[in-house]
Amino acid sequence: MNTYINKMTENSIMHDPAGENRFKNTESVLFWLESKRKTSSLSVKTIPFEMLDQWHFDKETYNLLHESGKYFNIGGIRVSTNFGFSKSWDQPIIYQPEVGLLGILTKKFKGVQHFLMQAKAEPGNPNIVQLAPTVQATESNYTQVHKGRAPLYLEYFFNNTNSKILVDLLQTGQGARFFKKKNRNMIVEVNENIKSHEYFCWLTLWQIKELLAVDNVVNVEARSVLACMPIEEISYSSFSKTAELKTDSNGYFVLNRDLFGSIPKTGDVYVSMNIIIGWINKMKKIYTLDTKRIPLKKTSRWERTNFKITHESKRFFSIMAVSVNVGSREVAHWAQPLLTSDSYGIAGFIIKKIKNIFHFLVQAKVEAGNCDVIELAPTIQCSSIEGMVQQKEKPPFFDFFINAEPDQVKYSTIQSEEGGRFYCLQNRYMLIEVDETRLAEVPENYMWMTLDQMMELVKYGYFNIYARSLLAYAFIG
Amino acid sequence: MNTYINKMTENSIMHDPAGENRFKNTESVLFWLESKRKTSSLSVKTIPFEMLDQWHFDKETYNLLHESGKYFNIGGIRVSTNFGFSKSWDQPIIYQPEVGLLGILTKKFKGVQHFLMQAKAEPGNPNIVQLAPTVQATESNYTQVHKGRAPLYLEYFFNNTNSKILVDLLQTGQGARFFKKKNRNMIVEVNENIKSHEYFCWLTLWQIKELLAVDNVVNVEARSVLACMPIEEISYSSFSKTAELKTDSNGYFVLNRDLFGSIPKTGDVYVSMNIIIGWINKMKKIYTLDTKRIPLKKTSRWERTNFKITHESKRFFSIMAVSVNVGSREVAHWAQPLLTSDSYGIAGFIIKKIKNIFHFLVQAKVEAGNCDVIELAPTIQCSSIEGMVQQKEKPPFFDFFINAEPDQVKYSTIQSEEGGRFYCLQNRYMLIEVDETRLAEVPENYMWMTLDQMMELVKYGYFNIYARSLLAYAFIG
Repeated sequence: MNTYINKMTENSIMHDPAGENRFKNTESVLFWLESKRKTSSLSVKTIPFEMLDQWHFDKETYNLLHESGKYFNIGGIRVSTNFGFSKSWDQPIIYQPEVGLLGILTKKFKGVQHFLMQAKAEPGNPNIVQLAPTVQATESNYTQVHKGRAPLYLEYFFNNTNSKILVDLLQTGQGARFFKKKNRNMIVEVNENIKSHEYFCWLTLWQIKELLAVDNVVNVEARSVLACMPIEEISYSSFSKTAELKTDSNGYFVLNRDLFGSIPKTGDVYVSMNIIIGWINKMKKIYTLDTKRIPLKKTSRWERTNFKITHESKRFFSIMAVSVNVGSREVAHWAQPLLTSDSYGIAGFIIKKIKNIFHFLVQAKVEAGNCDVIELAPTIQCSSIEGMVQQKEKPPFFDFFINAEPDQVKYSTIQSEEGGRFYCLQNRYMLIEVDETRLAEVPENYMWMTLDQMMELVKYGYFNIYARSLLAYAFIG
Repeated sequence: MNTYINKMTENSIMHDPAGENRFKNTESVLFWLESKRKTSSLSVKTIPFEMLDQWHFDKETYNLLHESGKYFNIGGIRVSTNFGFSKSWDQPIIYQPEVGLLGILTKKFKGVQHFLMQAKAEPGNPNIVQLAPTVQATESNYTQVHKGRAPLYLEYFFNNTNSKILVDLLQTGQGARFFKKKNRNMIVEVNENIKSHEYFCWLTLWQIKELLAVDNVVNVEARSVLACMPIEEISYSSFSKTAELKTDSNGYFVLNRDLFGSIPKTGDVYVSMNIIIGWINKMKKIYTLDTKRIPLKKTSRWERTNFKITHESKRFFSIMAVSVNVGSREVAHWAQPLLTSDSYGIAGFIIKKIKNIFHFLVQAKVEAGNCDVIELAPTIQCSSIEGMVQQKEKPPFFDFFINAEPDQVKYSTIQSEEGGRFYCLQNRYMLIEVDETRLAEVPENYMWMTLDQMMELVKYGYFNIYARSLLAYAFIG
């Protein structure tokens, strides 16, 4: 990212009182984010659990609870499954039963679809400020139970006759860290003039795609919503106009249809949606997932010190506490637990062209907090690259990613996970292309799919958040 | 049906040793079914519960159990919901946790796709023998746990390298009568020569459509599988050839694309799949369904005599027992409970053309045994027409069906439900067309959808069995 920032000059920011796209290029967006980092002045400090204001460990269970009974809490879970190497284990997990709202406003300027993105500070982000959806709100926040200050732009998402809902889907959170967590992912189109605010900017899909290729710029909530993009509506409403606009190289969005194409209709390559859904149902049947909520106190092999809850092996993840001081936020100070890890994870798809259409190697994967046994995941998804390199039993296809030749790497970016729950938890996201002749046979919990097919399955909530992060890039790519 | 049979002559059956389509027209299929009725010689007799061989009422719970612990059993359920008129009630319900197989073989003869249908006798069918899928098997049956005699043609459905699986989907049973019941619905294409058997025949989709317009010919299991037809694969592999063949009026199948068309891409009419899925998720959220399994003994307001378990109001349904004697079946005699009702039910869609494309008014409906709160149902679905005519609180849109003018009625046929569980339980299935200007506003749990959209949602298991029965007709229609 630094190389980008070094190239930037302040002149590249165009003044734009009407709230239209103010950026000429990617660098200027990064520069703007950097300026928001300075003014947001959020500082995060590790603290011992005993200094966690408004939080306490329950005397009976040792569960870590917020005094409101809302927000989120950390308890234990006992897991057993026939999937993967470990067959049964205990772990801490985040319980957050509320359905949050992740919403992006979209509006056409000169016929080109723009998306209103927020420069949002979160304590767990490695660089504090990242690009977030227009609105990120908890359920009590957006249903206005507390009649508190509503998030900016919230009024456009509900009961607004002038806005058109393009997307309103439930999508899951990290299944290995959250217990059955779901968020509403919305994209809403407005026609009226929208008031501009300091921490918000309009971007085209093209610009967002460029930013997705930079480390830690587009936050995971935004990536999740972007993966739900109603591509067919955007293409037919804006595609031709934007195709013209692309030629002026102003960064206006255009869709590269190379990755889409149409599904081959003949030959043994074509796997129909019927077959894919049959395969998903089969995976739900052959894999088992039994979970039981248990007190944190009873999670075997996990230990608590003043500063951390860790596994005795020091692997996997740990729970820590932070104190946060913030300038531009409604609450000036708060403390909260966060989940963290010492090592980088990896999430990546192997892709290959079959009859000239890109196919993605999709994994059916069991994770502790999944709602329905399996979710569809990237070809590889593991929480510690380091750990895997040392281990004898590597996950399938690991070497394809570690030993990829430069010309095979179609995408490789570091992205952090939810900054409100995870402290600097980062994964390398990759797309690795292999030759058409490779991997004709894959294990039974893997399936080749086209991007079209994946975009359909995303609507029905089958893809996990790691896969959606990659899809957000791939479908614009 | 009798009018059809009266017109038939035995000459209309062509002898066909190779197992190809032996029927020239609809009448000859009905005649063949009638002949199977004679040779199957299945007789059904009402008996008191105490004569139910191999069944007993549990001493503690009064649940009606089979001595094998398998098969199915009848217990109680306590239901509460915020949907509809009744907010909480108890009822008996059928528990059958095994996932049955409903499979149809398909094969091209002279380029035209044919489907292998079985003349199957079931004790609950009003006319005993109806057209069934190639294979109807319980889970222990098709996984060969008991190493008993396998159903005919079962070998083509599993691990057969010469057959191609076109469809393998989980679909639900009647949510008001079964507790979370699911069946595998499969369509498998074969290329090799298939041995013909006396009780089986190859039919085109065109012929099946004609038969779906006759009362009580195509059984509900077959209708369920037909609703999963992978229309896109069949159309591109056979459409042009069959279009030629149609001209010789031999009854060869051809798809009428009038009902399909493509989804209008512009205007305020078009509701995208994203919006529809958002609506489904919303329905799952605003409606509640709490169910608790209770002993049959504790089902409030239900009474048991020697012959029946009935509601004190004599409405809804009842449980009875039958003794069955059969010629052509593997077991020569058995006894079993069946669920029955004194009155006909109704299930129907209101349809209308919007910009020349047919749309169906789909209802989100809560039923006691649903797996996930709501399923998508026909516009109207109720278990007693009579009962509703007398009641003050009629279900929405009831009058559209009762008072429909003849030219509005696009489909109206009596069909019985699962003959292995229900005794002469019959519903009138209807498609009623209204003017484009009608019903612009509908209650929040109703949504207009195109057939294309419904066919996509069927794949994901959203439509209940009543809706699928109507879809089976509509998409061929």
